[in-house]
Amino acid sequence: MALHPITDSASYLARHLGPDTAEEQVMLGALGYGSLAELVDAALPTDIRLTEPLPRHAPLSETEAQARLREYASRNTVLRSFYGQGFSDTVTPPVIRRGVLEAPGWYTAYTPYQPEISQGRLEALLNFQTMVSELTGLPVANASLLDEASATAEAVGLMSRAQRKGRRVLLDARLHPQVLAVAAERARAIDLEVAVEDLSGPLVGEDLCGVVIAYPGTEGDIADPRPVIEAVHARGGLATVVTDPLSLLLLESPGEMGADIAVGSSQRFGVPLFYGGPHAAYMAVSDALKRQIPGRLVGVSVDAEGAPAYRLALQTREQHIRRERATSNICTAQALLAVTAGMYAVYHGPEGLRAIAERVHGLACDFAAAVRAAGGTVLHDAFFDTVAVRVEAARPIVGTLAEAGYLVRAVDGTTVGVSFGESAEEGDVEKLAAVFGASLTAGTRCIPASVARQTPTLTHPVFSTLHSETQMMRYLRTLSDRDLALDRTMIPLGSCTMKLNPTAGLETITWPEFADMHPFAPDDQAAGWLALIAELEGWLAELTGYAKVSVQPNAGSQGELAGLLAIRRYHVANGDMDRDICLVPASAHGTNAASATLAHLRVVVVGTAGDGSIDMDDLDAKLAEHGPQVAAIMITYPSTHGVFEDTVREVCDRVHAVGGQVYIDGANLNALTGLALLGRIGGDVSHLNLHKTFTIPHGGGGPGVGPVCVAEHLVPFLPADPTSLDGATPAAVGTGVPVSATRHGSAGVLQISWAYIAMMGTDGLTRASAAAILSANYVAHRLGEAFPVLYTGRNGLVAHECILDLRDLTRQTGVTATDVAKRLIDFGFHAPTLSFPVAGTLMVEPTESEDLAELDRFIEAMLTIRAEIDEISGGDIAYEDSVLHHAPFTAWSVSRDDWDHAFTREQAAWPVPGLRRTKYFPPVRRLNEAYGDRHLVCACPPPEAFDLSEENQ
Amino acid sequence: MALHPITDSASYLARHLGPDTAEEQVMLGALGYGSLAELVDAALPTDIRLTEPLPRHAPLSETEAQARLREYASRNTVLRSFYGQGFSDTVTPPVIRRGVLEAPGWYTAYTPYQPEISQGRLEALLNFQTMVSELTGLPVANASLLDEASATAEAVGLMSRAQRKGRRVLLDARLHPQVLAVAAERARAIDLEVAVEDLSGPLVGEDLCGVVIAYPGTEGDIADPRPVIEAVHARGGLATVVTDPLSLLLLESPGEMGADIAVGSSQRFGVPLFYGGPHAAYMAVSDALKRQIPGRLVGVSVDAEGAPAYRLALQTREQHIRRERATSNICTAQALLAVTAGMYAVYHGPEGLRAIAERVHGLACDFAAAVRAAGGTVLHDAFFDTVAVRVEAARPIVGTLAEAGYLVRAVDGTTVGVSFGESAEEGDVEKLAAVFGASLTAGTRCIPASVARQTPTLTHPVFSTLHSETQMMRYLRTLSDRDLALDRTMIPLGSCTMKLNPTAGLETITWPEFADMHPFAPDDQAAGWLALIAELEGWLAELTGYAKVSVQPNAGSQGELAGLLAIRRYHVANGDMDRDICLVPASAHGTNAASATLAHLRVVVVGTAGDGSIDMDDLDAKLAEHGPQVAAIMITYPSTHGVFEDTVREVCDRVHAVGGQVYIDGANLNALTGLALLGRIGGDVSHLNLHKTFTIPHGGGGPGVGPVCVAEHLVPFLPADPTSLDGATPAAVGTGVPVSATRHGSAGVLQISWAYIAMMGTDGLTRASAAAILSANYVAHRLGEAFPVLYTGRNGLVAHECILDLRDLTRQTGVTATDVAKRLIDFGFHAPTLSFPVAGTLMVEPTESEDLAELDRFIEAMLTIRAEIDEISGGDIAYEDSVLHHAPFTAWSVSRDDWDHAFTREQAAWPVPGLRRTKYFPPVRRLNEAYGDRHLVCACPPPEAFDLSEENQ
Repeated sequence: MALHPITDSASYLARHLGPDTAEEQVMLGALGYGSLAELVDAALPTDIRLTEPLPRHAPLSETEAQARLREYASRNTVLRSFYGQGFSDTVTPPVIRRGVLEAPGWYTAYTPYQPEISQGRLEALLNFQTMVSELTGLPVANASLLDEASATAEAVGLMSRAQRKGRRVLLDARLHPQVLAVAAERARAIDLEVAVEDLSGPLVGEDLCGVVIAYPGTEGDIADPRPVIEAVHARGGLATVVTDPLSLLLLESPGEMGADIAVGSSQRFGVPLFYGGPHAAYMAVSDALKRQIPGRLVGVSVDAEGAPAYRLALQTREQHIRRERATSNICTAQALLAVTAGMYAVYHGPEGLRAIAERVHGLACDFAAAVRAAGGTVLHDAFFDTVAVRVEAARPIVGTLAEAGYLVRAVDGTTVGVSFGESAEEGDVEKLAAVFGASLTAGTRCIPASVARQTPTLTHPVFSTLHSETQMMRYLRTLSDRDLALDRTMIPLGSCTMKLNPTAGLETITWPEFADMHPFAPDDQAAGWLALIAELEGWLAELTGYAKVSVQPNAGSQGELAGLLAIRRYHVANGDMDRDICLVPASAHGTNAASATLAHLRVVVVGTAGDGSIDMDDLDAKLAEHGPQVAAIMITYPSTHGVFEDTVREVCDRVHAVGGQVYIDGANLNALTGLALLGRIGGDVSHLNLHKTFTIPHGGGGPGVGPVCVAEHLVPFLPADPTSLDGATPAAVGTGVPVSATRHGSAGVLQISWAYIAMMGTDGLTRASAAAILSANYVAHRLGEAFPVLYTGRNGLVAHECILDLRDLTRQTGVTATDVAKRLIDFGFHAPTLSFPVAGTLMVEPTESEDLAELDRFIEAMLTIRAEIDEISGGDIAYEDSVLHHAPFTAWSVSRDDWDHAFTREQAAWPVPGLRRTKYFPPVRRLNEAYGDRHLVCACPPPEAFDLSEENQ
Repeated sequence: MALHPITDSASYLARHLGPDTAEEQVMLGALGYGSLAELVDAALPTDIRLTEPLPRHAPLSETEAQARLREYASRNTVLRSFYGQGFSDTVTPPVIRRGVLEAPGWYTAYTPYQPEISQGRLEALLNFQTMVSELTGLPVANASLLDEASATAEAVGLMSRAQRKGRRVLLDARLHPQVLAVAAERARAIDLEVAVEDLSGPLVGEDLCGVVIAYPGTEGDIADPRPVIEAVHARGGLATVVTDPLSLLLLESPGEMGADIAVGSSQRFGVPLFYGGPHAAYMAVSDALKRQIPGRLVGVSVDAEGAPAYRLALQTREQHIRRERATSNICTAQALLAVTAGMYAVYHGPEGLRAIAERVHGLACDFAAAVRAAGGTVLHDAFFDTVAVRVEAARPIVGTLAEAGYLVRAVDGTTVGVSFGESAEEGDVEKLAAVFGASLTAGTRCIPASVARQTPTLTHPVFSTLHSETQMMRYLRTLSDRDLALDRTMIPLGSCTMKLNPTAGLETITWPEFADMHPFAPDDQAAGWLALIAELEGWLAELTGYAKVSVQPNAGSQGELAGLLAIRRYHVANGDMDRDICLVPASAHGTNAASATLAHLRVVVVGTAGDGSIDMDDLDAKLAEHGPQVAAIMITYPSTHGVFEDTVREVCDRVHAVGGQVYIDGANLNALTGLALLGRIGGDVSHLNLHKTFTIPHGGGGPGVGPVCVAEHLVPFLPADPTSLDGATPAAVGTGVPVSATRHGSAGVLQISWAYIAMMGTDGLTRASAAAILSANYVAHRLGEAFPVLYTGRNGLVAHECILDLRDLTRQTGVTATDVAKRLIDFGFHAPTLSFPVAGTLMVEPTESEDLAELDRFIEAMLTIRAEIDEISGGDIAYEDSVLHHAPFTAWSVSRDDWDHAFTREQAAWPVPGLRRTKYFPPVRRLNEAYGDRHLVCACPPPEAFDLSEENQ
């Protein structure tokens, strides 16, 4: 096992690891082990270990890795993008690029589950929701979805649940092909009947749950959606409108037209094309549907002092609470991109956005007029930014334009689509028109009065306040300063692996040769991208022991879904039509059960034994009962209990014995990379989280990337390119089911994982896993006496995380795990994972990137908190009067004139001396969670809500 | 006058200006003017206005400007750099590039004159000083100088002052040519006799003030400096060693060898080549010289509570205090680059740096051995990183290597220098050797034992604590969070023009095609750079009305010096040998007088009239007295009193009448750009500050760029390329005097000004000047009642800044301008300029980039402070007990349990409600300035100094 000392202090490995060799020795000494290898030998079951070494890749330096990435970048040819089809040329304002996409305070943040330390990004996401709500004319919008295609799928699911009678859904044939491919298949997966139809005629049939309308259509054409909306409503069904947010500056809103749901992509609000993603899709719904909207929803509540404060609303409906009753498996969203799009709207405001929309529309009109004037055939009279031209043969024209530096779309053999984006100019119209034999003509507006926007939009003051670059720069800083992210503190979140995001990789995502590539550019223009992706997929296959990997899933949830759909397709292909049961251990991540539900598998829970491992007797009982119907078991390894279970091979063997497949969730791969292979210990399929183990930053709640990895027999069922199906079903053409809008999903951030793997090398990755195990065991050892570690494995060791059990202390003193989580804020820490997988506990995952001083700082905080708990159990203070019950404390609360607590200001704010050097104050006191759900407000409140000049002074 | 309303809200102009059209109307209304044009007409003297419109350049969008810059970048050919000569290939760690060079919190900061809000950058600069001190073995190092050449010149000046007897200085002929050119000419300018000599023989002559020794020499050769040091000491002179800091990991330190002074460039500590700059040079001196060291010096002091705190030490010796008695005119340093270099040392630590030095040295040895093994002639046996090879003809070899992708140096016609940098690899040695007909051979070390380093270095814990990227990321954030920079608040500093630094320009400085270009690359490789620089110089000439501009001066001080040297050369060329008097108004910036001194001009002060303008009678008297000896007058326009003087043309005419030249300091050009031309109102020469008017960020105290602009008759005397002189004096070859180490000075940041001018266009620049005048008058109007405005011009208007006179209030209440400056920190503001140009006043320059809300927030703070003053004058509270006397307040001070002030905590920390949303707490209380100068400590204190666990708890 390659766990040698680090000799080159400037290697990326030495930079990535928190503890240096001397610190490692201290930690090993505390645990009683002489070396990392000894520790790993003691922790890891013998039967899962590598039997032969992995192919060895020597590590690259940061400079070498960036040079390789520059070489890949140079192999991409970025044309001026006039392709459209859901992805538009846009201009990212530099102040937002630098201030959000390239700012550690924004991109290293975690999902805002702890609202007190997340007010900045919650405000930014609320801006996004408000923007979506105002543009779509629907009252409630969520804080983003993964892409337009899966957002449409979620809308279909929502319609089917809200409208339980019908099992048939109509999809507008004018939707983008990738949207049709994903939404249709996701609908079929939950057993809906799908019809793709021309909606211009009357609706037929009675069992409709809903209809999905394109507005505009993929050829750019605008049709008034009202007749269809009214028709489907008349039949008791619901209406979803898929729309382009920029077009809504000029088109009447779906909400005003009666739609129940609107979805789309906010990409063109300043988010680079990124070769397909990550981009923030959105969903807005009517008031009647607001409590069923999938994804994250930021809401307004109040804190303990009654001040307005933001939080994630209605979390009880989410997958991690509802598990197998969940209706969506969405976990990660696209927070960083939603923030970007929201800030773009804040910066441009309604007038600026309208000006951009008018200009884009005007150029399209000029182009259409020129083509028509030259005798050409423009297919549609009403359009926003896209002009479809009938030609004799599309391909040659596309080729000619490529040579002129333009990327346009061959809609079909005889149709060329030209789509205008933000940076298009009159000069482009001239050059484009010339290829169609036309010369410049001033066009007239091509938006019929019947659909022209009448209702005002973006009326909230936040969209007309921040007009200068200085203001925007400061707003971005102000918001990010309110939050605690990885750039200020350890984020010891169990199962989330909040480790270092290497700058060397991150720097490359905004390189224009990568960032400005359209996802549907032909392969010869994207040679660098394709080579990079193939190499990354190959490395991931090596590191997991699987035959093949697809990076298409743009979140862990989508990776799970892709994996389960592959399993289902496999069984069906084998004639095993009845295998529809998915075994899920009680300790599984909630997403597992939700994904199974979305794949139309029935969930059967397998119990947990006393030591936290899978109850083998219960497994046998369930296999005996359901054997021939067992499609799969979903396990996590190491388990969500943070333990290397000894029985994992046995579990896999028994499930295989009844013909089931084994899905191993790769969420905890950070404990295992280089040490064992999921594909060799019994897994048939896994998904990974590149935003956990492979260092893509969490972005405040996304982007995530969730590659799916499969054994040889499942390779045919890996996700297909969603644009390759051409209307056919994957089953009919024998491919896997697409789960994302583009072939490579969130391609635009894959360089980060590529760089991480390249810079670590095989040995470095192995060493990082060992270091993660060391750090978790060090924390468990140091804290175990104060807070019992719930589960341990071989030799009393944990894997890469540990569960601290507070339930006894809670019973004795009233102090809850939540109190401890909130109190940690006063020490400048983000809380560990709260009450997952076991209620009343905290799960701590320190990762390999935290140095010993930071681990010790965390341990000091936890031991100080334990002493505070002891004061309650010792009778020195009542729980209700304790600092724990009242934590956290704002700067205002500890420095205002009034102070009527039983503890002192210094006890509240300065519990340990180290805080004197660096102190973080949360901007709000503890959130009142219940209030927010009772009084659901999911758009920006008026400025008066924040007027503190009267009260509290 | 092109002062139309802004119609395109997405134009850069609209983003650059703080107030939008509506806000402008509010401000104009308050002043009683109907339009910007009316206000400007009222403020500006008629006789200085433009008589014909400027050539009109239409503004570019951010996208267009970046596209143009990409085009320039693409015309540069960056080879692998093995050139050396003071500029070495280095690797900027990505975490430092993103966390410092690209981080607004670092680069938008001002010079740390207000220590309470500058503790972060002061700590970073102290790291730099400690690094320099430990490497050079000398106890006191300053916080950076402008470049190696001018640092050497400063060392010569220091030696001549400290050692007043001798007037002769010996310069080692082995110094880099550019160092020789600048240092020799600067020495001659202050009337020293300069000899450039081979120092290997015995020293000759008795009147030596000092010697400057190259260690290593420009050909890479290492000679033991001790014999020369001992010889010069024996003659009562001093010794300066010019050295490469990386070499000092392997070479014994100058201090240990007896040197009095060490200077050099820290560029290769992670700072990109930047086509010549900006880079931080350094100077370290013996204990005996520490109170005479030029430039900024960070020292350790204590705050009002006795806690350790940093500040600029010994400021009383600086030019802005000592004026014509100043010994250096240095004002701006290279703070941002010093921070970068210091962080590089912190990140790599002694072992990491030694490893880099060993590797670089090893490659050089291998290369030399290979050449020798193949029968080639290596000129020197002892070297660090540079190998000089004797060849038949150097040019063809340089050409062959260029084709192979390598940039090497033709030292002379038959010598090729090959210099190894951080990213060099064994493969490079192989390719380089091949061109010399050699193949790879392992060399032996080429550092003689006599000079090998024996003394330990970088022993302070700060250099061995932060080894991981996570730690460095957090350290950079922690430090910058302690400071107030433009990314959080208005910095209303009179005469400093702290306005928006446009991200669109800033983004381009780290593009590798710009950043990685060696300054001595041949012009055909730097075609993009040359075109960009020529275009920028042309634009600056247009905007000032001068014939020609040189961007060579890398700070305003150097621009002044270059301008005065041009004037002196001009007079001498005309046979006017006796013109050595420089008239300087009493209100001038201290740098003016200091620059005159450095140009060996005698300063004669012209008095100020009652209204703040130049006293015309006194001017006449001085002209009458000194007429034939008057070399020049140095004035500032608009004046340092913030007023458009009506008499400026008259002043120029009268000086011209006696044969003097007129130097107009362009420091206040932000009031004038597009409205008037310095070169047309009487100026013969001006310098500009690109870091003021033209948006290069201040970087926490540098980089600055100070182009010199001259009328036609002075064009021949613009600074020459320092490498073009080849040992001759500028006078002999008829060129101007070089003032920087490279032809284009701090070329690497010129894109910022280029982008600003390009994106504003001529009209935009004009409008910005008008907006700056509007904002200053608005502030003056709103505050004038509470704090009298000291000087006004036509129609009671100020120019772009105003002086608030606190002297009456001070007399009445004891509250000083300093108290107000410190109290503003509690409101989250950086102080205005304090006691310049008039003691007891505050000078406020709001700039055009601050929006009305921010201006009003500042006005609210000032009026609140006035009310606090009134409480003292009203007898409600004693000055000594007042919140003003005790400001500012740390978070600790207002939330600790003890509180024994006569005012409340809320009065101290929360004086206005707006602070509840965004509150900045300084990390220390008011600095004890006197303590720090009495107890001079200029290196990092030991960690125990910060142990707060016992005291203050």
